[in-house]
Amino acid sequence: MNDKKKVSLAVVRRLPRYYRYLADLLKMDITRISSKELSARMGITASQIRQDLNCFGGFGQQGYGYNVEVLFREIGAILGLTNNYTTIIIGAGHMGQALANYKNFEKRGFKNIGIFDVKEEIIGKEINGIKVMHIDELDEFVKHHKVDIAMLTVPYEVTPIVAEKAAKLGIKGLWNFSPMDLKLPYDVIIENVHLSDSLMVLGYRLNERFCKGGRGEAKSGDAKDGEK
Amino acid sequence: MNDKKKVSLAVVRRLPRYYRYLADLLKMDITRISSKELSARMGITASQIRQDLNCFGGFGQQGYGYNVEVLFREIGAILGLTNNYTTIIIGAGHMGQALANYKNFEKRGFKNIGIFDVKEEIIGKEINGIKVMHIDELDEFVKHHKVDIAMLTVPYEVTPIVAEKAAKLGIKGLWNFSPMDLKLPYDVIIENVHLSDSLMVLGYRLNERFCKGGRGEAKSGDAKDGEK
Repeated sequence: MNDKKKVSLAVVRRLPRYYRYLADLLKMDITRISSKELSARMGITASQIRQDLNCFGGFGQQGYGYNVEVLFREIGAILGLTNNYTTIIIGAGHMGQALANYKNFEKRGFKNIGIFDVKEEIIGKEINGIKVMHIDELDEFVKHHKVDIAMLTVPYEVTPIVAEKAAKLGIKGLWNFSPMDLKLPYDVIIENVHLSDSLMVLGYRLNERFCKGGRGEAKSGDAKDGEK
Repeated sequence: MNDKKKVSLAVVRRLPRYYRYLADLLKMDITRISSKELSARMGITASQIRQDLNCFGGFGQQGYGYNVEVLFREIGAILGLTNNYTTIIIGAGHMGQALANYKNFEKRGFKNIGIFDVKEEIIGKEINGIKVMHIDELDEFVKHHKVDIAMLTVPYEVTPIVAEKAAKLGIKGLWNFSPMDLKLPYDVIIENVHLSDSLMVLGYRLNERFCKGGRGEAKSGDAKDGEK
């Protein structure tokens, strides 16, 4: 787990899925699982699973399979979920409010501690127990709180400006919801969420399956699982 | 473009990005572009670009590059964006309202025509010009309107039930926001949006870059571009 070998982002992007499936297994009191069984559940080949988990030193034992709880905990640690990340939301519009109310983030170890906006009518309003602050208060806030991640749900045009402001204040993680591949000349990590991309892929698959008399896909829901 | 060759989902998942970048180029009045220039902008190798676009017959000309407008139009058609897809939103909570107010979907050819919920206090309320209906009205609504896609923003527990209801009514595309890999024994296409997954990948990258003294990554924003 402390192996410093560079792991490809393609593998990293599959880790949250492992984490989710393992959480489900734990809930069902399943304590160990073979790569073959995990493969059947997740729609990833068993060899892919073994290969992925080997990147981190591998936690499986021949003939026994994986200890679900150990694997769950280790993947959580690899993902940094044990770091108790703190987040703020910049932009208290609809999407910002949706994120502020999303229960799953805290469960995954991300605690939201601030919400910022510029609109006077929303400043001071409470969203999921947190009062919206004016963006001008951000500097002061960051001085007094550890802020790891800023979720950016601001209008498209101002996204680069707001992102730069956050980066300059030393916030190292930016989670961007504007439909752009945000890039900054700072030492920060940016993840861009492209909701429309996912919708467009759905559009493609509908077109392929139902509009062109194509061969279609074997079973609903499977395609993404196998390839993402 | 009407080539029936099966295209891998990995390629399909890159198409919306091409589409976005081409839209930006059009806005900048750039009429043609080489795979090399496109590569520099997108952070995908030029050979990957040529290979991807070849899957659909290829639109480039040696020594000329790609005609931006033609390529944009063709990729839009491949994605089915010319189908004038209609959507409904089931679940008018925070995320449902965020989606209802999201401007980008209609720009991409997805028109929202209905919002449904079960909470009495929200029925009849107008969200982005559309009155929220009770879920019991869904059957009747689907009989009288073409509905291609249901966006599911309902609580986790009821997601499979609501999804099944939509599928039984003949809605062929389901866009699921609950943190589960939804599967149904129906002939439908499901895209699962896992917001937490993206956040967890951000957590991983922060951990890798700033917490372990790792080698880090070359430039912010680049990693995802190259590999997704």
